[in-house]
Amino acid sequence: MARVSQQHLDARRRQILDGARRAFTRGGFHATSMQDILKESGLSAGAVYRYFPGKNEIIAAVAEEAFERLRGAFEDAVHEAPLRPLEDVLASVLAAALHEEGSCGADGAGGTGGCADPLDGRTFPQLILQVWGECIRDEPLRRAMTSGYGRMREAWAGLIAAYQSAGVLPPDIPAVAVARTLMAACQGFLVQQAVFGDVTSDLLRDGLRALLTAPVPQSGARDR
Amino acid sequence: MARVSQQHLDARRRQILDGARRAFTRGGFHATSMQDILKESGLSAGAVYRYFPGKNEIIAAVAEEAFERLRGAFEDAVHEAPLRPLEDVLASVLAAALHEEGSCGADGAGGTGGCADPLDGRTFPQLILQVWGECIRDEPLRRAMTSGYGRMREAWAGLIAAYQSAGVLPPDIPAVAVARTLMAACQGFLVQQAVFGDVTSDLLRDGLRALLTAPVPQSGARDR
Repeated sequence: MARVSQQHLDARRRQILDGARRAFTRGGFHATSMQDILKESGLSAGAVYRYFPGKNEIIAAVAEEAFERLRGAFEDAVHEAPLRPLEDVLASVLAAALHEEGSCGADGAGGTGGCADPLDGRTFPQLILQVWGECIRDEPLRRAMTSGYGRMREAWAGLIAAYQSAGVLPPDIPAVAVARTLMAACQGFLVQQAVFGDVTSDLLRDGLRALLTAPVPQSGARDR
Repeated sequence: MARVSQQHLDARRRQILDGARRAFTRGGFHATSMQDILKESGLSAGAVYRYFPGKNEIIAAVAEEAFERLRGAFEDAVHEAPLRPLEDVLASVLAAALHEEGSCGADGAGGTGGCADPLDGRTFPQLILQVWGECIRDEPLRRAMTSGYGRMREAWAGLIAAYQSAGVLPPDIPAVAVARTLMAACQGFLVQQAVFGDVTSDLLRDGLRALLTAPVPQSGARDR
Protein backbone atom coordinates (compact mmCIF):
# COMPACT_ATOMS: atom_id res chain seq x y z
CA MET A 1 0.00 0.00 0.00
CA ALA A 2 1.38 3.42 -0.91
CA ARG A 3 2.23 5.60 2.05
CA VAL A 4 -0.24 8.43 2.41
CA SER A 5 -0.45 11.07 5.08
CA GLN A 6 -3.09 11.01 7.83
CA GLN A 7 -4.24 14.38 6.51
CA HIS A 8 -4.90 12.86 3.10
CA LEU A 9 -6.81 9.93 4.65
CA ASP A 10 -8.91 12.30 6.74
CA ALA A 11 -9.70 14.51 3.75
CA ARG A 12 -10.86 11.53 1.72
CA ARG A 13 -13.04 10.26 4.52
CA ARG A 14 -14.49 13.78 4.87
CA GLN A 15 -15.20 13.87 1.11
CA ILE A 16 -17.07 10.55 1.28
CA LEU A 17 -19.13 11.54 4.31
CA ASP A 18 -20.02 14.96 2.89
CA GLY A 19 -21.16 13.37 -0.36
CA ALA A 20 -23.11 10.67 1.47
CA ARG A 21 -24.81 13.25 3.67
CA ARG A 22 -25.94 15.24 0.64
CA ALA A 23 -27.23 12.08 -1.04
CA PHE A 24 -29.00 10.86 2.11
CA THR A 25 -30.63 14.21 2.81
CA ARG A 26 -32.09 14.29 -0.66
CA GLY A 27 -33.10 10.67 -1.04
CA GLY A 28 -33.24 9.12 2.41
CA PHE A 29 -31.07 6.28 3.64
CA HIS A 30 -32.97 3.51 1.90
CA ALA A 31 -33.54 5.03 -1.51
CA THR A 32 -29.88 6.11 -1.77
CA SER A 33 -27.55 3.66 -3.51
CA MET A 34 -23.79 3.33 -3.30
CA GLN A 35 -23.77 4.71 -6.86
CA ASP A 36 -25.48 7.89 -5.62
CA ILE A 37 -22.87 8.24 -2.88
CA LEU A 38 -19.99 7.72 -5.35
CA LYS A 39 -21.48 10.32 -7.66
CA GLU A 40 -21.97 12.90 -4.89
CA SER A 41 -18.52 12.35 -3.43
CA GLY A 42 -16.81 12.36 -6.82
CA LEU A 43 -14.75 9.31 -5.91
CA SER A 44 -14.33 5.86 -7.42
CA ALA A 45 -15.82 2.71 -5.91
CA GLY A 46 -12.30 1.52 -5.08
CA ALA A 47 -11.53 4.70 -3.17
CA VAL A 48 -14.78 4.59 -1.17
CA TYR A 49 -14.65 0.86 -0.32
CA ARG A 50 -11.17 1.38 1.05
CA TYR A 51 -12.76 3.44 3.84
CA PHE A 52 -16.16 1.79 4.30
CA PRO A 53 -17.17 -1.83 3.63
CA GLY A 54 -20.70 -0.79 2.60
CA LYS A 55 -23.63 1.58 2.84
CA ASN A 56 -24.57 0.55 6.39
CA GLU A 57 -21.17 1.57 7.68
CA ILE A 58 -21.47 4.92 5.88
CA ILE A 59 -24.92 5.46 7.40
CA ALA A 60 -23.50 4.69 10.85
CA ALA A 61 -20.62 7.14 10.35
CA VAL A 62 -22.91 9.91 9.06
CA ALA A 63 -25.35 9.29 11.92
CA GLU A 64 -22.60 9.36 14.51
CA GLU A 65 -21.28 12.63 13.14
CA ALA A 66 -24.74 14.21 13.12
CA PHE A 67 -25.24 13.16 16.70
CA GLU A 68 -21.80 14.34 17.83
CA ARG A 69 -22.56 17.69 16.30
CA LEU A 70 -25.72 18.05 18.38
CA ARG A 71 -23.85 17.02 21.50
CA GLY A 72 -20.96 19.37 20.71
CA ALA A 73 -23.37 22.26 20.23
CA PHE A 74 -24.82 21.54 23.64
CA GLU A 75 -21.43 21.40 25.33
CA ASP A 76 -20.30 24.60 23.64
CA ALA A 77 -23.48 26.33 24.77
CA VAL A 78 -23.04 25.20 28.35
CA HIS A 79 -19.38 26.13 28.68
CA GLU A 80 -19.55 29.39 26.80
CA ALA A 81 -21.17 31.32 29.62
CA PRO A 82 -22.05 29.37 32.75
CA LEU A 83 -25.47 30.00 34.29
CA ARG A 84 -26.83 32.04 31.42
CA PRO A 85 -30.63 32.03 31.35
CA LEU A 86 -31.75 28.52 30.40
CA GLU A 87 -33.62 29.76 27.32
CA ASP A 88 -30.40 31.31 25.96
CA VAL A 89 -28.51 28.04 26.42
CA LEU A 90 -31.22 26.16 24.55
CA ALA A 91 -31.44 28.76 21.81
CA SER A 92 -27.65 28.47 21.28
CA VAL A 93 -27.92 24.71 20.90
CA LEU A 94 -30.75 25.07 18.39
CA ALA A 95 -28.93 27.86 16.51
CA ALA A 96 -25.89 25.61 16.06
CA ALA A 97 -28.09 22.75 14.85
CA LEU A 98 -29.81 25.10 12.40
CA HIS A 99 -26.44 26.49 11.22
CA GLU A 100 -27.61 29.99 11.98
CA GLU A 101 -25.08 32.69 11.24
CA GLY A 102 -22.76 33.36 14.15
CA SER A 103 -23.49 30.02 15.78
CA CYS A 104 -20.01 28.65 14.94
CA GLY A 105 -16.66 29.89 16.15
CA ALA A 106 -15.23 32.88 14.23
CA ASP A 107 -12.80 30.63 12.39
CA GLY A 108 -15.64 28.48 11.17
CA ALA A 109 -14.04 25.41 12.67
CA GLY A 110 -16.56 25.03 15.44
CA GLY A 111 -15.01 21.91 16.86
CA THR A 112 -18.16 19.84 16.51
CA GLY A 113 -17.45 18.34 13.12
CA GLY A 114 -20.00 20.19 11.04
CA CYS A 115 -19.66 23.95 11.01
CA ALA A 116 -16.63 23.95 8.72
CA ASP A 117 -18.91 22.65 5.98
CA PRO A 118 -21.51 25.21 4.95
CA LEU A 119 -24.99 23.69 5.04
CA ASP A 120 -28.35 25.28 4.69
CA GLY A 121 -30.54 25.33 7.78
CA ARG A 122 -32.57 22.27 6.85
CA THR A 123 -29.82 19.78 6.00
CA PHE A 124 -28.93 18.87 9.53
CA PRO A 125 -32.51 18.63 10.85
CA GLN A 126 -33.48 16.45 7.89
CA LEU A 127 -30.47 14.25 8.45
CA ILE A 128 -31.09 13.78 12.16
CA LEU A 129 -34.73 12.94 11.38
CA GLN A 130 -33.45 10.21 9.05
CA VAL A 131 -31.17 8.95 11.81
CA TRP A 132 -34.00 8.74 14.33
CA GLY A 133 -36.16 6.90 11.80
CA GLU A 134 -33.35 4.49 11.01
CA CYS A 135 -32.99 3.61 14.70
CA ILE A 136 -36.37 1.86 14.48
CA ARG A 137 -34.97 -0.74 12.13
CA ASP A 138 -31.25 -0.75 12.87
CA GLU A 139 -30.63 -2.14 16.35
CA PRO A 140 -26.83 -1.45 16.49
CA LEU A 141 -27.51 2.17 15.49
CA ARG A 142 -30.28 2.41 18.09
CA ARG A 143 -27.96 1.11 20.79
CA ALA A 144 -25.29 3.62 19.80
CA MET A 145 -27.84 6.44 19.87
CA THR A 146 -29.26 5.30 23.21
CA SER A 147 -25.85 5.33 24.79
CA GLY A 148 -25.03 8.72 23.24
CA TYR A 149 -28.31 10.19 24.46
CA GLY A 150 -27.68 8.71 27.87
CA ARG A 151 -24.52 10.81 28.11
CA MET A 152 -26.41 13.84 26.78
CA ARG A 153 -29.15 13.41 29.39
CA GLU A 154 -26.50 13.26 32.10
CA ALA A 155 -24.95 16.46 30.79
CA TRP A 156 -28.37 18.16 30.85
CA ALA A 157 -29.10 16.86 34.33
CA GLY A 158 -25.69 18.22 35.41
CA LEU A 159 -26.61 21.60 33.96
CA ILE A 160 -29.89 21.61 35.90
CA ALA A 161 -28.01 20.65 39.06
CA ALA A 162 -25.60 23.57 38.53
CA TYR A 163 -28.56 25.97 38.25
CA GLN A 164 -29.99 24.47 41.41
CA SER A 165 -26.72 24.85 43.32
CA ALA A 166 -26.52 28.48 42.24
CA GLY A 167 -30.08 29.09 43.44
CA VAL A 168 -31.38 29.88 39.96
CA LEU A 169 -33.65 26.83 39.99
CA PRO A 170 -35.35 25.45 43.12
CA PRO A 171 -33.66 22.45 44.77
CA ASP A 172 -36.72 20.22 44.63
CA ILE A 173 -37.49 20.14 40.89
CA PRO A 174 -37.40 16.75 39.11
CA ALA A 175 -34.08 17.23 37.28
CA VAL A 176 -34.47 14.27 34.90
CA ALA A 177 -37.96 15.30 33.78
CA VAL A 178 -36.82 18.90 33.26
CA ALA A 179 -33.74 17.80 31.31
CA ARG A 180 -35.77 15.53 29.05
CA THR A 181 -38.44 18.18 28.49
CA LEU A 182 -35.80 20.71 27.41
CA MET A 183 -34.19 18.14 25.11
CA ALA A 184 -37.63 17.33 23.71
CA ALA A 185 -38.25 21.00 22.90
CA CYS A 186 -34.99 21.11 20.89
CA GLN A 187 -35.78 17.84 19.14
CA GLY A 188 -39.30 18.99 18.31
CA PHE A 189 -38.02 22.21 16.75
CA LEU A 190 -35.62 20.12 14.63
CA VAL A 191 -38.67 18.15 13.44
CA GLN A 192 -40.52 21.39 12.65
CA GLN A 193 -37.51 22.72 10.76
CA ALA A 194 -37.03 19.49 8.77
CA VAL A 195 -40.68 19.46 7.73
CA PHE A 196 -41.63 23.16 7.49
CA GLY A 197 -38.29 24.97 7.24
CA ASP A 198 -39.49 28.08 9.13
CA VAL A 199 -37.81 27.64 12.53
CA THR A 200 -35.40 30.13 14.09
CA SER A 201 -33.77 29.79 17.48
CA ASP A 202 -35.65 32.93 18.59
CA LEU A 203 -38.88 30.92 18.63
CA LEU A 204 -37.45 28.61 21.28
CA ARG A 205 -35.83 31.45 23.24
CA ASP A 206 -39.02 33.53 23.30
CA GLY A 207 -41.35 30.60 23.93
CA LEU A 208 -39.29 29.14 26.74
CA ARG A 209 -38.65 32.53 28.36
CA ALA A 210 -42.41 33.19 28.42
CA LEU A 211 -43.05 29.82 30.07
CA LEU A 212 -40.24 30.32 32.60
CA THR A 213 -41.34 33.80 33.58
CA ALA A 214 -45.13 33.35 33.51
CA PRO A 215 -46.47 34.12 36.98
CA VAL A 216 -47.87 31.11 38.81
CA PRO A 217 -51.64 31.46 39.31
CA GLN A 218 -52.39 32.19 42.96
CA SER A 219 -55.43 29.95 43.20
CA GLY A 220 -57.66 27.57 41.30
CA ALA A 221 -56.60 24.66 39.15
CA ARG A 222 -52.90 24.76 40.05
CA ASP A 223 -53.63 24.06 43.73
CA ARG A 224 -55.49 20.82 43.18
CA MET B 1 -70.59 -4.36 -8.81
CA ALA B 2 -72.27 -6.19 -5.96
CA ARG B 3 -74.03 -3.93 -3.49
CA VAL B 4 -72.16 -3.79 -0.23
CA SER B 5 -72.94 -1.80 2.87
CA GLN B 6 -70.97 1.29 3.81
CA GLN B 7 -70.13 -0.48 7.05
CA HIS B 8 -68.52 -3.31 5.09
CA LEU B 9 -66.53 -0.85 2.96
CA ASP B 10 -65.34 1.00 6.04
CA ALA B 11 -64.33 -2.21 7.76
CA ARG B 12 -62.29 -3.32 4.75
CA ARG B 13 -60.57 0.04 4.49
CA ARG B 14 -59.81 -0.16 8.23
CA GLN B 15 -58.37 -3.67 7.76
CA ILE B 16 -56.05 -2.46 4.99
CA LEU B 17 -54.86 0.60 6.91
CA ASP B 18 -54.27 -1.38 10.12
CA GLY B 19 -52.23 -3.95 8.19
CA ALA B 20 -50.30 -1.26 6.36
CA ARG B 21 -49.55 0.56 9.59
CA ARG B 22 -48.14 -2.58 11.17
CA ALA B 23 -46.03 -3.28 8.07
CA PHE B 24 -44.77 0.33 7.86
CA THR B 25 -43.91 0.51 11.55
CA ARG B 26 -41.80 -2.59 11.25
CA GLY B 27 -40.16 -1.97 7.90
CA GLY B 28 -40.49 1.72 7.11
CA PHE B 29 -42.38 3.18 4.17
CA HIS B 30 -39.71 2.47 1.57
CA ALA B 31 -38.69 -1.05 2.49
CA THR B 32 -42.33 -2.17 2.75
CA SER B 33 -43.80 -3.73 -0.41
CA MET B 34 -47.44 -4.09 -1.43
CA GLN B 35 -46.92 -7.81 -0.76
CA ASP B 36 -46.05 -7.03 2.86
CA ILE B 37 -49.21 -4.95 3.18
CA LEU B 38 -51.38 -7.70 1.64
CA LYS B 39 -49.88 -10.23 4.01
CA GLU B 40 -50.40 -8.05 7.09
CA SER B 41 -53.96 -7.11 6.14
CA GLY B 42 -54.88 -10.68 5.18
CA LEU B 43 -56.59 -9.48 1.99
CA SER B 44 -56.11 -10.24 -1.69
CA ALA B 45 -54.47 -7.82 -4.12
CA GLY B 46 -57.84 -7.39 -5.83
CA ALA B 47 -59.51 -6.36 -2.58
CA VAL B 48 -56.79 -3.88 -1.65
CA TYR B 49 -56.46 -2.25 -5.10
CA ARG B 50 -60.21 -1.66 -5.04
CA TYR B 51 -59.58 0.87 -2.24
CA PHE B 52 -56.14 2.24 -3.05
CA PRO B 53 -54.43 2.59 -6.45
CA GLY B 54 -51.00 1.96 -4.93
CA LYS B 55 -48.59 2.17 -2.02
CA ASN B 56 -48.26 5.95 -2.15
CA GLU B 57 -51.99 6.39 -1.60
CA ILE B 58 -51.86 3.97 1.33
CA ILE B 59 -48.94 5.90 2.84
CA ALA B 60 -50.90 9.14 2.44
CA ALA B 61 -53.98 7.63 4.13
CA VAL B 62 -51.96 6.16 7.01
CA ALA B 63 -50.11 9.45 7.43
CA GLU B 64 -53.30 11.48 7.43
CA GLU B 65 -54.84 9.20 10.03
CA ALA B 66 -51.77 9.39 12.25
CA PHE B 67 -51.85 13.14 12.03
CA GLU B 68 -55.59 13.40 12.67
CA ARG B 69 -55.10 11.27 15.74
CA LEU B 70 -52.56 13.71 17.14
CA ARG B 71 -54.84 16.62 16.36
CA GLY B 72 -57.85 14.85 17.86
CA ALA B 73 -55.93 14.12 21.04
CA PHE B 74 -55.13 17.80 21.30
CA GLU B 75 -58.73 18.87 20.79
CA ASP B 76 -60.02 16.34 23.31
CA ALA B 77 -57.47 17.56 25.85
CA VAL B 78 -58.45 21.18 25.36
CA HIS B 79 -62.21 20.67 25.53
CA GLU B 80 -62.20 18.14 28.32
CA ALA B 81 -61.56 20.65 31.07
CA PRO B 82 -61.06 24.26 29.98
CA LEU B 83 -58.20 26.15 31.59
CA ARG B 84 -56.63 23.17 33.29
CA PRO B 85 -52.96 23.73 34.06
CA LEU B 86 -51.06 23.82 30.77
CA GLU B 87 -48.83 20.92 31.74
CA ASP B 88 -51.91 18.72 32.29
CA VAL B 89 -53.26 19.58 28.85
CA LEU B 90 -49.94 18.68 27.25
CA ALA B 91 -49.59 15.49 29.26
CA SER B 92 -53.08 14.41 28.09
CA VAL B 93 -52.10 14.94 24.46
CA LEU B 94 -48.93 12.93 24.93
CA ALA B 95 -50.75 10.19 26.88
CA ALA B 96 -53.19 9.75 23.99
CA ALA B 97 -50.34 9.63 21.47
CA LEU B 98 -48.57 7.02 23.61
CA HIS B 99 -51.79 5.01 24.01
CA GLU B 100 -51.42 5.12 27.76
CA GLU B 101 -54.16 3.37 29.70
CA GLY B 102 -57.09 5.64 30.42
CA SER B 103 -56.18 8.08 27.67
CA CYS B 104 -59.13 6.99 25.49
CA GLY B 105 -62.83 7.28 26.21
CA ALA B 106 -64.24 4.51 28.42
CA ASP B 107 -65.82 2.85 25.40
CA GLY B 108 -62.47 2.67 23.69
CA ALA B 109 -63.81 4.60 20.74
CA GLY B 110 -61.92 7.77 21.54
CA GLY B 111 -63.17 9.64 18.52
CA THR B 112 -59.73 10.27 17.14
CA GLY B 113 -59.49 7.31 14.85
CA GLY B 114 -56.91 5.26 16.64
CA CYS B 115 -57.83 4.27 20.17
CA ALA B 116 -60.25 1.55 19.08
CA ASP B 117 -57.26 -0.38 17.79
CA PRO B 118 -54.98 -1.52 20.58
CA LEU B 119 -51.38 -0.52 19.86
CA ASP B 120 -48.35 -0.63 22.02
CA GLY B 121 -46.91 2.69 23.11
CA ARG B 122 -44.25 2.83 20.42
CA THR B 123 -46.30 2.12 17.31
CA PHE B 124 -47.76 5.58 16.91
CA PRO B 125 -44.54 7.50 17.69
CA GLN B 126 -42.62 5.32 15.23
CA LEU B 127 -45.27 5.86 12.59
CA ILE B 128 -45.37 9.64 12.99
CA LEU B 129 -41.55 9.68 12.80
CA GLN B 130 -41.85 7.85 9.46
CA VAL B 131 -44.41 10.41 8.30
CA TRP B 132 -42.18 13.35 9.19
CA GLY B 133 -39.25 11.71 7.40
CA GLU B 134 -41.37 11.02 4.35
CA CYS B 135 -42.34 14.71 4.13
CA ILE B 136 -38.74 15.47 3.13
CA ARG B 137 -39.15 13.57 -0.13
CA ASP B 138 -42.90 13.66 -0.76
CA GLU B 139 -43.98 17.19 -1.58
CA PRO B 140 -47.78 16.53 -1.67
CA LEU B 141 -47.55 14.87 1.74
CA ARG B 142 -45.45 17.76 3.04
CA ARG B 143 -48.04 20.27 1.83
CA ALA B 144 -50.84 18.29 3.50
CA MET B 145 -48.85 18.15 6.75
CA THR B 146 -48.00 21.85 6.58
CA SER B 147 -51.63 22.78 6.21
CA GLY B 148 -52.67 20.39 8.97
CA TYR B 149 -50.02 21.77 11.31
CA GLY B 150 -51.10 25.28 10.41
CA ARG B 151 -54.54 24.48 11.85
CA MET B 152 -52.96 22.84 14.87
CA ARG B 153 -50.80 25.89 15.53
CA GLU B 154 -53.88 28.08 15.36
CA ALA B 155 -55.63 25.82 17.84
CA TRP B 156 -52.66 26.07 20.19
CA ALA B 157 -52.46 29.83 19.78
CA GLY B 158 -56.20 29.97 20.56
CA LEU B 159 -55.57 27.96 23.71
CA ILE B 160 -52.83 30.37 24.80
CA ALA B 161 -55.16 33.30 24.09
CA ALA B 162 -57.86 31.72 26.28
CA TYR B 163 -55.35 31.37 29.14
CA GLN B 164 -54.37 35.00 28.62
CA SER B 165 -57.99 36.19 28.67
CA ALA B 166 -58.58 34.29 31.88
CA GLY B 167 -55.52 35.91 33.46
CA VAL B 168 -53.66 32.60 33.81
CA LEU B 169 -50.96 33.72 31.37
CA PRO B 170 -49.75 37.33 31.02
CA PRO B 171 -51.23 39.32 28.11
CA ASP B 172 -47.86 40.20 26.60
CA ILE B 173 -46.32 36.77 25.98
CA PRO B 174 -45.45 35.82 22.37
CA ALA B 175 -48.35 33.40 21.76
CA VAL B 176 -46.97 31.88 18.55
CA ALA B 177 -43.55 31.15 20.05
CA VAL B 178 -45.14 29.64 23.17
CA ALA B 179 -47.53 27.50 21.09
CA ARG B 180 -44.71 26.21 18.91
CA THR B 181 -42.47 25.50 21.89
CA LEU B 182 -45.22 23.44 23.56
CA MET B 183 -45.84 21.55 20.30
CA ALA B 184 -42.09 20.99 19.98
CA ALA B 185 -41.94 19.46 23.48
CA CYS B 186 -44.70 16.97 22.52
CA GLN B 187 -43.01 16.18 19.20
CA GLY B 188 -39.64 15.71 20.90
CA PHE B 189 -41.09 13.25 23.40
CA LEU B 190 -42.60 11.31 20.49
CA VAL B 191 -39.08 11.13 19.01
CA GLN B 192 -37.67 9.94 22.36
CA GLN B 193 -40.40 7.31 22.64
CA ALA B 194 -39.90 6.08 19.06
CA VAL B 195 -36.15 5.69 19.58
CA PHE B 196 -35.82 4.77 23.28
CA GLY B 197 -39.28 3.56 24.28
CA ASP B 198 -39.04 4.84 27.87
CA VAL B 199 -41.31 7.91 27.76
CA THR B 200 -44.37 8.44 29.94
CA SER B 201 -46.61 11.49 29.91
CA ASP B 202 -45.57 12.16 33.53
CA LEU B 203 -42.12 13.20 32.29
CA LEU B 204 -43.67 16.03 30.28
CA ARG B 205 -46.12 16.97 33.05
CA ASP B 206 -43.42 17.10 35.73
CA GLY B 207 -40.82 18.77 33.53
CA LEU B 208 -43.15 21.46 32.24
CA ARG B 209 -44.66 22.10 35.67
CA ALA B 210 -41.18 22.65 37.10
CA LEU B 211 -40.34 25.12 34.33
CA LEU B 212 -43.66 26.94 34.71
CA THR B 213 -43.41 27.27 38.47
CA ALA B 214 -39.67 27.95 38.82
CA PRO B 215 -39.27 31.31 40.53
CA VAL B 216 -37.82 34.01 38.31
CA PRO B 217 -34.37 35.09 39.52
CA GLN B 218 -34.60 38.54 41.09
CA SER B 219 -31.35 39.82 39.64
CA GLY B 220 -28.35 38.89 37.53
CA ALA B 221 -28.39 37.12 34.21
CA ARG B 222 -32.14 37.41 33.58
CA ASP B 223 -32.02 41.22 33.64
CA ARG B 224 -29.40 41.60 30.93
